[in-house]
Amino acid sequence: MIQPSLTTPAAKYAMRADVHRFGLKDPSDVSGLSQAIEKGVVDPGKIVGVIGKTHGNGLVNDYTRGYLTLCLSQLIGDRLGVSAENVSKRIPFIFSGGVEGVLSPHYTVLTADSTKGATGQEKSLAIGVAFTPELSVSDVGRQSQIEVTAEAVRQALVAADIQSSEDVHFVQVKGPAFTLREIVAATDAGLSCAAHHPGKLMGFGRAASALGVAKALGEIPASQAKEASVLRDFSVYSSVASVSAGIEVRSNEIIVAGLSRAWSGPLTIAHRSMLDALDIGSITALAEELGLSPAPQIPAAKARRIRAAFVKCEAQRDGTIRGRPHTMLNDGDIDQQRHIRGAVGAIVAAVLNDTALFVSGGAEHQGPDGGGLIAVIAEKG
Amino acid sequence: MIQPSLTTPAAKYAMRADVHRFGLKDPSDVSGLSQAIEKGVVDPGKIVGVIGKTHGNGLVNDYTRGYLTLCLSQLIGDRLGVSAENVSKRIPFIFSGGVEGVLSPHYTVLTADSTKGATGQEKSLAIGVAFTPELSVSDVGRQSQIEVTAEAVRQALVAADIQSSEDVHFVQVKGPAFTLREIVAATDAGLSCAAHHPGKLMGFGRAASALGVAKALGEIPASQAKEASVLRDFSVYSSVASVSAGIEVRSNEIIVAGLSRAWSGPLTIAHRSMLDALDIGSITALAEELGLSPAPQIPAAKARRIRAAFVKCEAQRDGTIRGRPHTMLNDGDIDQQRHIRGAVGAIVAAVLNDTALFVSGGAEHQGPDGGGLIAVIAEKG
Amino acid sequence: MIQPSLTTPAAKYAMRADVHRFGLKDPSDVSGLSQAIEKGVVDPGKIVGVIGKTHGNGLVNDYTRGYLTLCLSQLIGDRLGVSAENVSKRIPFIFSGGVEGVLSPHYTVLTADSTKGATGQEKSLAIGVAFTPELSVSDVGRQSQIEVTAEAVRQALVAADIQSSEDVHFVQVKGPAFTLREIVAATDAGLSCAAHHPGKLMGFGRAASALGVAKALGEIPASQAKEASVLRDFSVYSSVASVSAGIEVRSNEIIVAGLSRAWSGPLTIAHRSMLDALDIGSITALAEELGLSPAPQIPAAKARRIRAAFVKCEAQRDGTIRGRPHTMLNDGDIDQQRHIRGAVGAIVAAVLNDTALFVSGGAEHQGPDGGGLIAVIAEKG
Amino acid sequence: MIQPSLTTPAAKYAMRADVHRFGLKDPSDVSGLSQAIEKGVVDPGKIVGVIGKTHGNGLVNDYTRGYLTLCLSQLIGDRLGVSAENVSKRIPFIFSGGVEGVLSPHYTVLTADSTKGATGQEKSLAIGVAFTPELSVSDVGRQSQIEVTAEAVRQALVAADIQSSEDVHFVQVKGPAFTLREIVAATDAGLSCAAHHPGKLMGFGRAASALGVAKALGEIPASQAKEASVLRDFSVYSSVASVSAGIEVRSNEIIVAGLSRAWSGPLTIAHRSMLDALDIGSITALAEELGLSPAPQIPAAKARRIRAAFVKCEAQRDGTIRGRPHTMLNDGDIDQQRHIRGAVGAIVAAVLNDTALFVSGGAEHQGPDGGGLIAVIAEKG
Repeated sequence: MIQPSLTTPAAKYAMRADVHRFGLKDPSDVSGLSQAIEKGVVDPGKIVGVIGKTHGNGLVNDYTRGYLTLCLSQLIGDRLGVSAENVSKRIPFIFSGGVEGVLSPHYTVLTADSTKGATGQEKSLAIGVAFTPELSVSDVGRQSQIEVTAEAVRQALVAADIQSSEDVHFVQVKGPAFTLREIVAATDAGLSCAAHHPGKLMGFGRAASALGVAKALGEIPASQAKEASVLRDFSVYSSVASVSAGIEVRSNEIIVAGLSRAWSGPLTIAHRSMLDALDIGSITALAEELGLSPAPQIPAAKARRIRAAFVKCEAQRDGTIRGRPHTMLNDGDIDQQRHIRGAVGAIVAAVLNDTALFVSGGAEHQGPDGGGLIAVIAEKG
Repeated sequence: MIQPSLTTPAAKYAMRADVHRFGLKDPSDVSGLSQAIEKGVVDPGKIVGVIGKTHGNGLVNDYTRGYLTLCLSQLIGDRLGVSAENVSKRIPFIFSGGVEGVLSPHYTVLTADSTKGATGQEKSLAIGVAFTPELSVSDVGRQSQIEVTAEAVRQALVAADIQSSEDVHFVQVKGPAFTLREIVAATDAGLSCAAHHPGKLMGFGRAASALGVAKALGEIPASQAKEASVLRDFSVYSSVASVSAGIEVRSNEIIVAGLSRAWSGPLTIAHRSMLDALDIGSITALAEELGLSPAPQIPAAKARRIRAAFVKCEAQRDGTIRGRPHTMLNDGDIDQQRHIRGAVGAIVAAVLNDTALFVSGGAEHQGPDGGGLIAVIAEKG
Repeated sequence: MIQPSLTTPAAKYAMRADVHRFGLKDPSDVSGLSQAIEKGVVDPGKIVGVIGKTHGNGLVNDYTRGYLTLCLSQLIGDRLGVSAENVSKRIPFIFSGGVEGVLSPHYTVLTADSTKGATGQEKSLAIGVAFTPELSVSDVGRQSQIEVTAEAVRQALVAADIQSSEDVHFVQVKGPAFTLREIVAATDAGLSCAAHHPGKLMGFGRAASALGVAKALGEIPASQAKEASVLRDFSVYSSVASVSAGIEVRSNEIIVAGLSRAWSGPLTIAHRSMLDALDIGSITALAEELGLSPAPQIPAAKARRIRAAFVKCEAQRDGTIRGRPHTMLNDGDIDQQRHIRGAVGAIVAAVLNDTALFVSGGAEHQGPDGGGLIAVIAEKG
Repeated sequence: MIQPSLTTPAAKYAMRADVHRFGLKDPSDVSGLSQAIEKGVVDPGKIVGVIGKTHGNGLVNDYTRGYLTLCLSQLIGDRLGVSAENVSKRIPFIFSGGVEGVLSPHYTVLTADSTKGATGQEKSLAIGVAFTPELSVSDVGRQSQIEVTAEAVRQALVAADIQSSEDVHFVQVKGPAFTLREIVAATDAGLSCAAHHPGKLMGFGRAASALGVAKALGEIPASQAKEASVLRDFSVYSSVASVSAGIEVRSNEIIVAGLSRAWSGPLTIAHRSMLDALDIGSITALAEELGLSPAPQIPAAKARRIRAAFVKCEAQRDGTIRGRPHTMLNDGDIDQQRHIRGAVGAIVAAVLNDTALFVSGGAEHQGPDGGGLIAVIAEKG
């Protein structure tokens, strides 16, 4: 069994989450985790998810996500004596390509274990995972994707033993993308796809998944968690969802991170919505809340307490930021997602004093339009 | 005469500099200046320089700089009754391409005028301009470019009536770039070029020009302002130089901005070196010095006092930032300059609450290696 | 009057078209035409259209088209003593950006003049131009764009005195593109746009314009020249239309080239549909028809008879070419249009022994799906 | 033993080479070879090399080559019961990224086996492989790389039992590339590198390796196979070398393909130098020689006889093609290699009626400057 049973922690045993971040020289570089396993720092049987940022462009033709997934699932499978396929079916590997500007490629390994010790004292980082069934190309962006995502988020909440939606600080979803070849084949077979351009279909999938998260957490009424809202009504959003899409997965893989008294340990998590791409105040406020003393940059000694940071962002759809035009959406040379990741990633890095950030573009229905999300896991102050 | 004589301000007349910033819908959009002239806000005869950020890639094949130069010189020439050629020979038009991420295309018009009023009270923004003779492709990156640049900076200092190097806060240089065609023609004609790749030759030109600035201001001893240091000894630099290159100019065009008691008016200027790409502390310190109350973002009301901001930055040559790898120098899809402009530009924009920034890459010998320069012109506090 | 009256050639005067092609060092380089005017080779008053290929990316943020338009209209205006605005209202300047691979930037100047001499002997190159009224962003891709384009094509046919649709070999249309800013403004004003992504809207405009051409020439029944077919029914197309879009024009500008006994002179024109991107046979067949002896390359001596070549092409929508997958439509780094122009342009260049080709992507409803058009103007054999 | 002993074919046994080409849906798609092994079409123990074209950009940050190498070596290792590492040490996996324009991702598996049957009748396709020792970053572009490459080519010739240099038609070399991180580390350790820019160092490595091939085959005198000629004297070249570089290999891996009477079977090979990017005549001449009846395109029925095609090409260094400028070397948006691969690949595809071509840029000292190489393996006529 490579994933601990998260649903029934024994009475006097708390669960305990841990988070390990490793640099990535190239997308096949799993030396960091390998050494951590050898040294006994990470127990491969306790890994419940991996989230990372790889070297590719983060668009349809980004194969670095699949490459790292293969290498990590083989490493973990080797250590556990199971097949790589078996590993990747049980552990979400959620990778986003694109380390524009100052960002640094890396991956973050999440573990969950039961541990002796009283619970109920203070809330600690809690993690739960779940998978939807496989999605076909014609499910993407549809009501069906909204529904199965909502159901899987509910399962992950149970797994994490998080009692209240208010204790949920980050819901990472990785859903399937499809190449033109697959879209054409589906259309030829009589299926109807939400979009025919592969990149655009990725957007539909992110959007529907975000609405599924919002529905599960009660952030929006069920009446708004509708296909009709997808990429249309941007006032409808989740403030904790972060959704990526990639051709290397076939179902929605979900990692919920929050706080729970059923868990113990040294880690906590907090988040903020970013109202727009320049909303540095939300970043410093979050750092303050975590006791990291931003001034405005977190000093190096405190920055070491950061275990992981997750950012979602997006080029503002009306072509402006605070009234002045940006050019990201007119650019035929560099994709808008690469622009905005490089920009918002740099602002967050400058405050956190840390460049190994998970920064992902395509924030449709994930935070206010033109804005996004920042969530940080850190050692308690 | 389209440029006021800056060298001999009459005894009881102070000089007075003004700075007007206009948005740019496309590189031919000179409507902002046109309207300002019509309304009497800008006297076209008092314009001494224009600095701007256009829509192109900022690399060799960026024609947006030349396009805007043509349109502005025609507009100003029309209003003054002289030819566009005549205008562009007398006014430096210094445009840098590349508005990555949150940056907004714009241009900043600098004017200088004599004005009634006592001088000597407090220092105010002072501006001086100068041009080197035309440079050939074989001068670029050579001792000759260092020397003529140093001489032109000295002329500009005299023109600006700036008494001390310590009062110089920003020296913008725009020098010539050459296409492969021109480099090949020069080589075929027996000339020796510092580099044969057009993009690389741009770097040589920026580097030699920066050393010329450093020499003129006494930032480095003459013994270090040598061709042998160009792109070799990066410990040798100017802390106020900002150099761009483009195929649309043939000489080094120089704008010096600083403080002088010979000038009056509501504007001041200050600068800081940025030690690396994450050095947000230097940005907030500069904003503090100017009385702009960053927290860490300057509030909108105070941000309106900013008249222009100039940033120079660069991807750190050793492939890391604060110990973690970046990928900018391995990227075959997006040029390193586009990466770093987008990143550092966003950090500065987040503090200044302003996206119409002049952010230029290629900071060879302009500030510490991997770092750069930020200079801000603002209304006095 | 800068455009000769093409509609009423006097009985014993034939019209005579001429075609001059000039290289383009940068998008402002109008030295070729300038010298030709000075030498008396081109009479600026006889210019009826200019078609060219500039250095930009050919996408929304390509400003090289507008730059060349400005420079040429100023040159011609100067020589004729009229304003540049006046020139560009009367002469279509149709520029497509993107000289990928072996292609060489250039522009082709079309002139028309009346000349002494009998007509009716043999058909010669005939040229006619027309403009639609200005189009708003909400007209693009709509029935209204189909209709006004069809009407303008009819006017151009009359102007060219071409008697039969079969004598039409090339209809170049340049229509307006709009930036995101303009699309958002229109939407905010309550207008409905066919697409909100600027690049996608360009495709709608090309498609509707092509259907307008097809309707005017009777290539398709009026019942199929409908908005409902736009980007939906790709079996509906014109085999002589070539449509570009760019932000530098506001109406559809149309140049019709064909054969007519009302014209005399040394030039002729012919065209072929290309069935797919590898259809080199159509290129050599066309060269044969023009007496250019391809083997498979036209020898240099005969290649000099080529005065201009126009190519339209497109990445096949199903993601394959002759059964094997291509990757153009999955690519997030290089736009599909840049891929296909570089590929098809090279094949044509290799046969024609000429790289100064007008090769334009985005062939929606212009030739069979995945294929395109090649038209060549050459000296008679 | 995964590689047959090629050096001592028994008297009455000939060697026999076979060539299998498989499409590649993504860089991990090894289904083609997997099925061929299952069906008994390919014996995994007889594989001596794999050459392929993957989805990446073909530049430093292309990880698709390593991804496919991993997947294929695991597949072959699985089938043979040896480790993937063991496989990739014995079999050269030579992948070039970049399927611009019409090109289709694929890989070609080369096998060699001993077979009953008389030899000495007619020459057939012969294949030999060899590896140099590992190369360090400071060996790249140096005399040492020239020498070890030459020695390895000689070993591969012996392995292939090719008697004369004239029977050598294709020498594929894959050598190491290094990231900036590795170059900086080497420099810090006191090593001297031929270039500090990772992309430029790739060029040095290709160049030195090509000179090594030329030396081994006697194409140039030993006095010219010198480090001093590397990237300097482009009149010195091999007409059969094709060299790629990638970060996924550490030694020069060499595959020699030619003709020998010691081999039998249905396959042959031929090659031509391409004099420049438009040299379509060399392609059709080669097709003629192989009996493929180009007119100018090879008809589909005959195109099926093509088993593999290898092309090497390069943007002409003087910025022109046949006197007209190209823009590939001034482009800051698309790398010159991507431009030229898309262009020359399309010309070859149009003649061969085949898009699954190995087209590789960076032809330094591989064929005449600005030109390159085409080699085709086909069934005998």
